Amino acid sequence: MSTLIENALIVTQDQTRRIFRGNVQFDGDTITYVGREKPKSESIIDGTGKIVIPGFINTHAHVGMSASKGLFDDVDLERFLDMTFKYDAQRTEDGIFNSARIGMYEMINAGITSFVDLYYSEDVIARAAEQVGIRAFLSWVTLDREFTTQKGDPLDNAENFIRSHRNMRFVRPSVGVQGIYVASDETYHRAKEIADRYDTILHMHLSETRKEVYDSVKKIGERPIEHLDRIGVLSDRVIAAHCVWSTYHEAKILGKDNVNVSWNSVSNFKLATGGVPPIPEMFEAGANITLGTDSNGSNNSLNFFEVMKFSALTLKNARWDASAIKSQQILDFATINAANALKINAGSIEVGKKADIVILDARAPELIPTSEINVVNNIVYSAGPGIVDSVIIDGIFRKKDGKLIGFDQSGLSSAENFI
Amino acid sequence: MSTLIENALIVTQDQTRRIFRGNVQFDGDTITYVGREKPKSESIIDGTGKIVIPGFINTHAHVGMSASKGLFDDVDLERFLDMTFKYDAQRTEDGIFNSARIGMYEMINAGITSFVDLYYSEDVIARAAEQVGIRAFLSWVTLDREFTTQKGDPLDNAENFIRSHRNMRFVRPSVGVQGIYVASDETYHRAKEIADRYDTILHMHLSETRKEVYDSVKKIGERPIEHLDRIGVLSDRVIAAHCVWSTYHEAKILGKDNVNVSWNSVSNFKLATGGVPPIPEMFEAGANITLGTDSNGSNNSLNFFEVMKFSALTLKNARWDASAIKSQQILDFATINAANALKINAGSIEVGKKADIVILDARAPELIPTSEINVVNNIVYSAGPGIVDSVIIDGIFRKKDGKLIGFDQSGLSSAENFI
Repeated sequence: MSTLIENALIVTQDQTRRIFRGNVQFDGDTITYVGREKPKSESIIDGTGKIVIPGFINTHAHVGMSASKGLFDDVDLERFLDMTFKYDAQRTEDGIFNSARIGMYEMINAGITSFVDLYYSEDVIARAAEQVGIRAFLSWVTLDREFTTQKGDPLDNAENFIRSHRNMRFVRPSVGVQGIYVASDETYHRAKEIADRYDTILHMHLSETRKEVYDSVKKIGERPIEHLDRIGVLSDRVIAAHCVWSTYHEAKILGKDNVNVSWNSVSNFKLATGGVPPIPEMFEAGANITLGTDSNGSNNSLNFFEVMKFSALTLKNARWDASAIKSQQILDFATINAANALKINAGSIEVGKKADIVILDARAPELIPTSEINVVNNIVYSAGPGIVDSVIIDGIFRKKDGKLIGFDQSGLSSAENFI
Repeated sequence: MSTLIENALIVTQDQTRRIFRGNVQFDGDTITYVGREKPKSESIIDGTGKIVIPGFINTHAHVGMSASKGLFDDVDLERFLDMTFKYDAQRTEDGIFNSARIGMYEMINAGITSFVDLYYSEDVIARAAEQVGIRAFLSWVTLDREFTTQKGDPLDNAENFIRSHRNMRFVRPSVGVQGIYVASDETYHRAKEIADRYDTILHMHLSETRKEVYDSVKKIGERPIEHLDRIGVLSDRVIAAHCVWSTYHEAKILGKDNVNVSWNSVSNFKLATGGVPPIPEMFEAGANITLGTDSNGSNNSLNFFEVMKFSALTLKNARWDASAIKSQQILDFATINAANALKINAGSIEVGKKADIVILDARAPELIPTSEINVVNNIVYSAGPGIVDSVIIDGIFRKKDGKLIGFDQSGLSSAENFI
């Protein structure tokens, strides 16, 4: 069925970053018209007073932990990890499934149409994603056997997960690595080999904490990014979450290897282990910068507007320079750059792209007044989930008129549902 | 008329910070019952799945600039000030009135029930506040005559404003000072004398930027806080916005003088001039810490949830210590501390207090699951304006079932309405 959103302010995120008042048509799962004409359509959405943008793409999450919000706060990292490991150890499949659903609803509510996850039990999360209807790039986490509580070999588990989830509508399976502190060179090589063989992303934590970096230097004489570069693991398949503890030299490595960086500013600040990564230097060197929420356990929300604003402001402050990063760059990180990282036909409002579309209410007080001249600033610095009017994923409305569609709260009423 | 909110999770912010499931009754403008009983009431609100908290109190705003969002972003401070002064110079009374209304609606939408403003033309803003129905502590800004574009003497203007606005329902008039860079000792003394005579707050910018502090040291050999202490201006009447460029010694001065500090973290980071003030040291010394949004020109939103989370996270990061500040402290800053700063009978859910009440929707995905054990964490780290179900100010619903009441958008449709 063809649907026309008419008379909206459209932020295309196309090659020229065109912004104009006009109309967008989609038919089935694909955008079929973008312009000032009004092609005949079966359904019409009045876009007056609305803004149309491509859906946000969250490149680092642990959505199975979405119900752990508010449980591990205001404590140091050691205690945080201790508490999360204890929480994790007692979890059931139902608990993970329900937590994943809650996180997916929260993401859709905030305009996120695709996300990249790193966790075990991704088969359970895949089931939730197909039910909720959000694009899910699910990376089964691997690590050395001596460190895992997974049954069997994590790398076999990852490969089995990929093999059995290759023909789904919303799910794209892939492989991940927990981090250099629990993964040998062999684990990295085997994970890379699986990613190459099945042509998937290779998702990992990288240089998140000072301890991780200095332990690595002590143990092998190299910083994590230097090491993974030398052993040949880094490439444009890699989505490297955090990269906060990076030198300018490492920023150059990330650029040379065409790595996709997932900047998780809110989580890094909340855990107080990260600070601000050298984003301008990574960008300059050619790395592809994207944004991530991390989990509700450390963030504690999956609000992409917050991530965009927080990232911009913390970088400005770190450089004592309000022009150190601009709203258009941040919006690129949140949309088209992330689509490029995932090699999906999304991230912009253009004919032939997937119908992953977000409509914002420009008549909310937060956005009054908004016009062509300040719309990108207002999306990045003034908007929030409360002004997301509609979310369309693969041509299907998942939020409409400010309300989630199909948000079934049964079985989600008490903490016991999420363990 | 008596109204009972029943079966809600109540975060009282009373002396013992009691949190419990129960019922809150208000009658007219006053809270008349808080407990587990259900006193007979004319109107019943079902609070199942809801959280009741006291309304937030924003201690630093320039609400007349609310329509300038997205106009001055991503530029250095010099260019920012140049652009805002040019914008200000061409403004009309209607423009200020409409901008103030938009800002007030945005604040109510985010659960703010009282705010403190610093601007000229506070008479126009007073008219907007009485129309919209939000508690407005309006400080007419003063500065030396050579620096102002105000007609007449700013101090006379401030005094006239106070005299003519003393008997209003929502407005409390007061006096302010722009800052040490445009105000002589005589201006500070006269402003203080007015505040003392009319028993009002004395609202000011203080130690916001490095330049302000170092210019002061160069010119008079003292840092701004040291200087204002020595000349006898600081007291518990003072609401000092920013205080980011403060030494530990100055933190002690703020404590000794019982100053109310308004911490404006989002604005400070966005302008990249501020950083993180020594909040733990100020707190330790006895200063009363509160939170402010600053204006849409520099923030660019009036989202108090964002201010709470941003403040907490930037302090944690600055100290490399996730336990450096806790959610309960932040909620205190946002509510009861600010009520103490303003000497108003609000800031907590207790019998006899003003009926300034906010109801949050705990069934939104952002807050699932919430219980007594994590509700304060979830308010500070996971919530947002989109989950504010209702806002009651002085006993009147200004937002209900997630919708602003009486939000009249006529005359607010284009940028021309706000100049």
